[in-house]
This record gives sequence, structure tokens and C-alpha cells, in this order.
Amino acid sequence: MEKEIFLVEGAGFCFGVKRAIDIAFDVAEKHKEGLFTLGPIIHNPQVVEKLRELGVNPLEDISDRLDIKTLIIRAHGIPKGKLEELKNYGFEIIDATCPFVKRAQKIAEKLALEDYQVIIIGDKNHPEVKGILSYAGEKAVVIKNSEEIPYINKKIGIIQQTTQPLSKVKEILNGIINSLSEFEEMRIFNTLCNFTSKRLEATEKVAKEVDMMIVIGGKNSANTNQLANLCRKIGVKTFHIEDAEEINSDWFRGVKKIGITAGASTPNWIISKIVDKIKCL
Amino acid sequence: MEKEIFLVEGAGFCFGVKRAIDIAFDVAEKHKEGLFTLGPIIHNPQVVEKLRELGVNPLEDISDRLDIKTLIIRAHGIPKGKLEELKNYGFEIIDATCPFVKRAQKIAEKLALEDYQVIIIGDKNHPEVKGILSYAGEKAVVIKNSEEIPYINKKIGIIQQTTQPLSKVKEILNGIINSLSEFEEMRIFNTLCNFTSKRLEATEKVAKEVDMMIVIGGKNSANTNQLANLCRKIGVKTFHIEDAEEINSDWFRGVKKIGITAGASTPNWIISKIVDKIKCL
Repeated sequence: MEKEIFLVEGAGFCFGVKRAIDIAFDVAEKHKEGLFTLGPIIHNPQVVEKLRELGVNPLEDISDRLDIKTLIIRAHGIPKGKLEELKNYGFEIIDATCPFVKRAQKIAEKLALEDYQVIIIGDKNHPEVKGILSYAGEKAVVIKNSEEIPYINKKIGIIQQTTQPLSKVKEILNGIINSLSEFEEMRIFNTLCNFTSKRLEATEKVAKEVDMMIVIGGKNSANTNQLANLCRKIGVKTFHIEDAEEINSDWFRGVKKIGITAGASTPNWIISKIVDKIKCL
Repeated sequence: MEKEIFLVEGAGFCFGVKRAIDIAFDVAEKHKEGLFTLGPIIHNPQVVEKLRELGVNPLEDISDRLDIKTLIIRAHGIPKGKLEELKNYGFEIIDATCPFVKRAQKIAEKLALEDYQVIIIGDKNHPEVKGILSYAGEKAVVIKNSEEIPYINKKIGIIQQTTQPLSKVKEILNGIINSLSEFEEMRIFNTLCNFTSKRLEATEKVAKEVDMMIVIGGKNSANTNQLANLCRKIGVKTFHIEDAEEINSDWFRGVKKIGITAGASTPNWIISKIVDKIKCL
């Protein structure tokens, strides 16, 4: 049976991830030792492995390491306090935080300074959100659904984890509107990443027209899981894989149209390998 | 049959109206001639008549009047251009614009200066809204329901006519949230008058517990009409009157509990007269 493959436009590396990786490879070329990233630079084990081969090692804890010469801050960013602490160590810091995340951090800081209670729509356990929260002042809260909306009575500023789906954000904003009784001002900044929402939209379009979706990306990658959940919600048979090894030819029996999408941390070489493998089944 | 009368707390003059009338009476004491208000100072014919007796006359058009010495700006405020024009005439201007309306005008001006598209939730034919709109910049729009929401793609600032009901405002804000696709920032200032919303709430409470509601206030007063509509929506028999003369004893047959409320432009002396008349029926 002839297979048709539909690759989602914008699948794979987003702007911020591509930029962080370019920075890491660039730094690896110039520095030959003492080069580390704080945590994995992006949520993709293959990329982390490639960098390790070039001498860039991920560190979770820097406290006992005296051999650090250059430390790269990952795409998700880190908490403000942690960044300030690192600056005291004396080694070189290269900040590869995604500019969209950096913008969200800056807006959070500005809102907190201007005495808004900051509400972050997102997942409080995600490193990006932990970073943004650290800039958002003492009164800040992270909410991921309408049940978690706090009592609102003065000035509130609302921002979002960059990878939240717009539909989810709208649902929570409506919940906030409905809970208003007295308030002075409500300021909503759109901190959603354009690349993420475009990829979600393009994935939805393809998922509605195929018999099966292959979603590529780290099992712990929030934005990849979002893509897989979206496809499942649409009702199309969906497999979430990290690399070509996981592909099972049984999946493709009787399947004609296959859609392929990938999370923001998935390099093109992995997507190509998977497309090629499916073509040859 | 014994009648019980429930007078709604906060019925009648609101802060801004009381202030405007105090200003007018005060000015009338000091100035003996050439004293005018631009349009009726508040939406109440009895108050306008009382002021006329003291020599304060409402003017719709000042262009042919050379006898103006002092002109009082009414509680609803006037458009920016009109105010600037008046300043050129050389007579004294006393601004009795309600401070809540003034605040809405100032917020509109600030938002327009900072390049927000201003959306005013309210009635575009109301003098207060015409005034606020004149401060809100060229891109400003007035909307009174969700069908009128414009396309939103950049920075929008949202304010409200001070007397809009919060429930209506929430409905429109939800509509705006749902229509978002791309946007940079949305800033919502609460410009609702506390007195108005408290009166609406208190009226609702009373209307649910009585057999009949008497709503007192000008037939052309937006906030009085709102009170009457609220009562009718609750399903209680409702009469909207301007003064005691309109009362018909037939209305009260078989009625035990009577609720009384009044719009922001209704003086206490009218409310008292009506309460007394009902008691004596």
C-alpha cells in the first residue's frame, strides 16, 4: 500500500531552541575545557549527547565543581536568585535563555515592581515557569486551570508560560473575568510563543486529514506532550516517540496517510531519520 | 391591608451627582447673574427647575449668548474639544464633572497616548460616553454588546461607562477574550462607579423579596432604566415613575411588600414624598 507522509510545517526546533543550540556549538568551538550547561540545554537527549561529545557537559549541581570555566544557561532560563548566585562564582556565564522566555521574565519583573499581583498561567513544576515566577514578586501565583484562580481585588497582571495553548489561556482568562467582583486593573500580556501556537495549529490541520500521527520529541517535553494530546483529542491514532528505533512496522498496517510533527526540542536529523524509516517500511 | 415599604440602601443621589448639585447651589449663592450650566446639570427635571429658580439656567448652545459670566460643566462631563473651545470664550468655567467620570476620561487619554486602541463598554449616545470617547484617541470604539467587538490584534485598553452593570461588562470581556487570536497586551481598567454597582446589587436583593417595585428617576436616565430593567428581569411587578403625581392607587391592591429604589439623579425630597404618599394610600 502506497504511503503518503505529511510533515507538519514548523515541526521541530523552535527559534529559542535553535538559538540555544547554536550558542552551545559556537561556544564549544572556541572553548576547549571547563564548558558546562546548567541542566540539559534543551529537553532532548540526542542533542545533549552530541554536545557532550564536543565537551559540553550538563551539570545539575555546580556547588562542588571547581573546574567550571564557562557555564551556559539553558533555553528555559533559570530563577533570578540562581542567576545572581552564579555570577558570584567568577566563571563566565553565557545566557542562552530563549528571548521569548526572557521577555516573559522581564514583564513579570516590571509588573511586580509596579505592584501588580502577577498570575502566571502554566505548569508550576516546569523549569521555565520556575524561572519566570522568581521575577514575579512575592504575591505571584501559578495557575493551570480555572479552579486555581485566586481572589482578585486590586491590580493584577497576567502572563503565560510561553508554550501554553491559546485555547487553555482563553478558558482561564474567562474564569478570571467571571470571578471579578471588585478590581482596579487587570493587565494581560501575551507571552505565548508564536512558534508554539503556529505548530499546534499546523499539527491540528494535518491531524484532521490523516489516518495516523507520529509525534516526535522527548517523553518529558511539555510541548511535545501537548502535540500528542491534541492529536489524541482529535481522535486520530497517535504514537509519541523519541527516535526511529521505537517505530513498529505493525502500526502502519492498513494506514495510508501519515502525519508527522515534532516538539520544539527535536532536531531535524531525528525527524529526517524517522521520515526515511517510515518511507522504507 | 398593612403595607411594608423597603427602601433600597443607596437609592437616589450618588456621590458625583450630589457633588455637582452642591457645586451649583454653592455657585448660585455667590454669583447673582450670568450663571449657566451646559445642558442640564444632572438628569432630573426637578433639580434643574430648583436651580432655575436660583438663577442657574441650562443652556444647550452657548454660541449666541453674550451674557454668560460663569458656566458650570455638568456631572456627565463634556467632550475635550468642547471644553477647550469654551476656555477661549473668557468666561469662568466651573467643572462639576463627576470625579469617577473624570478618572475614566484621564485613563482614556493615557491609554490613547500610550498607543492602546481604546474600547469603551457603554452606550455611544450617552453624554458621559461622548465625553470619555473624545479623550480616547482616533482608534477608539464604543461597544455595548459582544456583536460589536472589533478585530483585536495589538495593544487594547478597555474602560467602561461608569454606570454599566458589572454583569454586562463581564459578558463583553468574555466575548473579547474569546475573539483573541493574536494580541500583544490587553489592559482593563475598572471605571465602574462603585455607588452604581452597589445600588444595583441592593436593588436586586430587595426586588427578590417584595411583591412590587417602585423605581424613581428620569425616564431618560440610563441608570434608572437599568434599575427598572433589572427588577422586570427578576419578574417582580415594576413601575418606573418620575414623581409622586404618577402614583396610581390601583397598583397597590393586594400588594403587601413594596420595594423602592431610585436612580442617581433622584433627590431625597422626591423619594420622601413618594414614600409618604404610598404610606397614606
